[in-house]
Amino acid sequence: MNSEHIQRLRAIVGESYVTQGDDIAERFRVDVGRRYTCQPLALVRPESTAQVSEVVKVAAQLNVAVTVVGGQTGTVGGAIARDGDIAMSLDRMSRVLEIDTLSMTMTVEAGCILQLAQEAAEAEQAFLPLDLGARGTAQIGGSIGANAGGNRVVRWGMMRDMVLGLEVVLADGTVVSGLTKMLKDNAGYNWKHLLIGSEGTLGIITRAVLRLRPLPTTRQTALFAMGSFEQAIAVLRRLEMALGGQLSSFELMWQDFYRTMTEAQQNFRSPPLSDQYPIYALVEAMGNDAQGDVERMEQAVATLLDEELVSDGVFARSSGQADALWAVREDLQWGLQGLRPFAAYDVSMAIADMPKFVADARARLEASLPGAVALFYGHAGDGNLHALVSVGELGPSIEHKMDEAIYGATRSVNGSVSAEHGIGMKRRAYLSYSRSEPELALMRQLKLALDPHGRLNPGKILG
Amino acid sequence: MNSEHIQRLRAIVGESYVTQGDDIAERFRVDVGRRYTCQPLALVRPESTAQVSEVVKVAAQLNVAVTVVGGQTGTVGGAIARDGDIAMSLDRMSRVLEIDTLSMTMTVEAGCILQLAQEAAEAEQAFLPLDLGARGTAQIGGSIGANAGGNRVVRWGMMRDMVLGLEVVLADGTVVSGLTKMLKDNAGYNWKHLLIGSEGTLGIITRAVLRLRPLPTTRQTALFAMGSFEQAIAVLRRLEMALGGQLSSFELMWQDFYRTMTEAQQNFRSPPLSDQYPIYALVEAMGNDAQGDVERMEQAVATLLDEELVSDGVFARSSGQADALWAVREDLQWGLQGLRPFAAYDVSMAIADMPKFVADARARLEASLPGAVALFYGHAGDGNLHALVSVGELGPSIEHKMDEAIYGATRSVNGSVSAEHGIGMKRRAYLSYSRSEPELALMRQLKLALDPHGRLNPGKILG
Repeated sequence: MNSEHIQRLRAIVGESYVTQGDDIAERFRVDVGRRYTCQPLALVRPESTAQVSEVVKVAAQLNVAVTVVGGQTGTVGGAIARDGDIAMSLDRMSRVLEIDTLSMTMTVEAGCILQLAQEAAEAEQAFLPLDLGARGTAQIGGSIGANAGGNRVVRWGMMRDMVLGLEVVLADGTVVSGLTKMLKDNAGYNWKHLLIGSEGTLGIITRAVLRLRPLPTTRQTALFAMGSFEQAIAVLRRLEMALGGQLSSFELMWQDFYRTMTEAQQNFRSPPLSDQYPIYALVEAMGNDAQGDVERMEQAVATLLDEELVSDGVFARSSGQADALWAVREDLQWGLQGLRPFAAYDVSMAIADMPKFVADARARLEASLPGAVALFYGHAGDGNLHALVSVGELGPSIEHKMDEAIYGATRSVNGSVSAEHGIGMKRRAYLSYSRSEPELALMRQLKLALDPHGRLNPGKILG
Repeated sequence: MNSEHIQRLRAIVGESYVTQGDDIAERFRVDVGRRYTCQPLALVRPESTAQVSEVVKVAAQLNVAVTVVGGQTGTVGGAIARDGDIAMSLDRMSRVLEIDTLSMTMTVEAGCILQLAQEAAEAEQAFLPLDLGARGTAQIGGSIGANAGGNRVVRWGMMRDMVLGLEVVLADGTVVSGLTKMLKDNAGYNWKHLLIGSEGTLGIITRAVLRLRPLPTTRQTALFAMGSFEQAIAVLRRLEMALGGQLSSFELMWQDFYRTMTEAQQNFRSPPLSDQYPIYALVEAMGNDAQGDVERMEQAVATLLDEELVSDGVFARSSGQADALWAVREDLQWGLQGLRPFAAYDVSMAIADMPKFVADARARLEASLPGAVALFYGHAGDGNLHALVSVGELGPSIEHKMDEAIYGATRSVNGSVSAEHGIGMKRRAYLSYSRSEPELALMRQLKLALDPHGRLNPGKILG
């Protein structure tokens, strides 16, 4: 691309919004895991859907591809441009455009930071349920492109379940705008759902209408210890009934994970429960009845203890206590210091298959990497497990063995190699562990139909 | 097609499962609204996915299309074959294959009747939330193909939200099987969601894995009268909070509809509330706490009355009383006798736009069909309204005026011409009222990619 081309891009987005070489901030060139790097020809920062469309049209004429770089919080190298292509940032398209409290929707630009969208909704007494650790950096567009999950899926679903309307720019620059506020809409093919989770490879998401919920004002948090996985699932089903529709999180932690986290944190936070139990569940319910919600949770806890479904349990009496319980699950920065370096996995399966998966994964690891430490935890209420594997060092050959063990065990239970983190570049080689050849062929057909020249985020998902 | 071709089909599915001409039962040739008829070359009844695939392959060789006829409960002519094509029934594929109470899933064949699936789940203390008036006839495959809605969408979503795994046969006979039980799965493009709601035009659904929920054991039903639509929505938002996640139905009835229904039923059922109010809400919550759920609903009702958000209300004290309240909304057979013949509509929009839509639709009808009666009701908690329009007679010219009025008003609020009934043949001419040209072009691209020769359910959605 010569300077004339750069001039064309500058004419679209403005002189100072096209940068090249070392003028491009590192976060647009290196992924958060520092595994993937790129040398894009230019970083382009449009401020409107029309500009995105124009840039895509110019890219097509120049025969280069476009990769949108969002908050760069993804773990699978899904937003790293190919060398010589255009990296696009939508950070200038970060506004909350409207909050409609009657219809309970919000309309946002794709570059809006998740946390700012959450806060804008809360200011109107409404609630955007999607929540993730990376909320302060992740953008709405990336969250839709990756179909983000997080801690509250068990009640409110994934990002897919919150997207009512969508606007995208296709590979030829066509703007397809379906910014509707409808909860139900069966008028023709649902292209919206095809775009959600497509990691920027079928279209560039520019704006979205999101569904809001009534803002919960109460939060009940509890931690249970149980004797077996089967008991944990019995507890899940009991709570789904006992708490009505209010159960918003059900996070399981296998003993190794619980012990590792609480030991690492013990100098500044006492373990909420003894680490002698096989499995732990962090449970949260959200509601709007200050007194009734507490009573309901207390009664549920009492019943679980009475019936000996749980071996021990603690119920947070304050917001601070609730945060401390969450820290056992979430404070990975501190909790996993002793485990570094480690490889992290995000798989899903039928809930019934989880014990088989864990046992199989451990056996495969022990066979190929004797002494490997494997910690299991995750959003078990959604069938989603995370695994952390460490042998004290990392490298391509070791990671390959870890991948084979974890994904081999995943395949053996007909599970998914990506529950919520996507495929990107990192998991591409294992897509076939979760998808049959006819499914992959169908995906290739869809990619070919929407992006025949491979101009959108090349090298991701299908390669 | 000559007898040799018929012999090939018989060789696949069995001698007695291919019928022709008048041997084909009427329900496979005439739609439920008696608007569309067809003369299929043959009705073919496979008993397995493999047989479906073989039939589709033979159809491709013979250059005829295949239309699957399900329970034939659709209202838009979505399942009527083209003359000379193959009509396919999956009534021999009607089994519940598995119920997994640990993972809370059920695996069914596409020809399974909805009500039988519901009952099979309940026998295992589990709950398939999809519910519609046509439950005794509608099949699971058709319910997925149409992305069925019904009375409980406000809590559990549409059919789309219950489909975890899907198996389809593509236009070339390829079997794509994704019968997984996962709640979260972000491994590549979500072809499942593209197929759901595609009305048999992109693939033939043969089996599915559905998500089950804990079986609710309590039901609280109430009817409220309110002074305005704005109050009705305030009531909806209050109940969403006051009942936690338990609100499962929120059905609005405008005064005309309420009055028409209660007057028609008055000889055997007294009106539960006076018909003097502008709008009525039928509300239902489902839970598992016999005592607590009643108390919560009673308290919610008391609060609504105290705060004068509702003008009057009645709370069902028994299952019989609850059924009587539902009959006001659902017993259309009796309630609408005096209105026949009438045209029925199924539109959706942002909830905030409903009053504008109703007023606009009335004004448009009055302008083109003075004296027309228009009754509005529907799943308002989902933004979905049904309209019934009558001028005492029906015919193409009258219906055209009705369509123009209702869909013109729908378009003016950026609404959908189909909330839950689909497009089929009947609404095809109005698809462009809800979808922009770029959206329609994208849909055509997708159809072309998956069914380039137009062999699956021709003439529906896009024509």
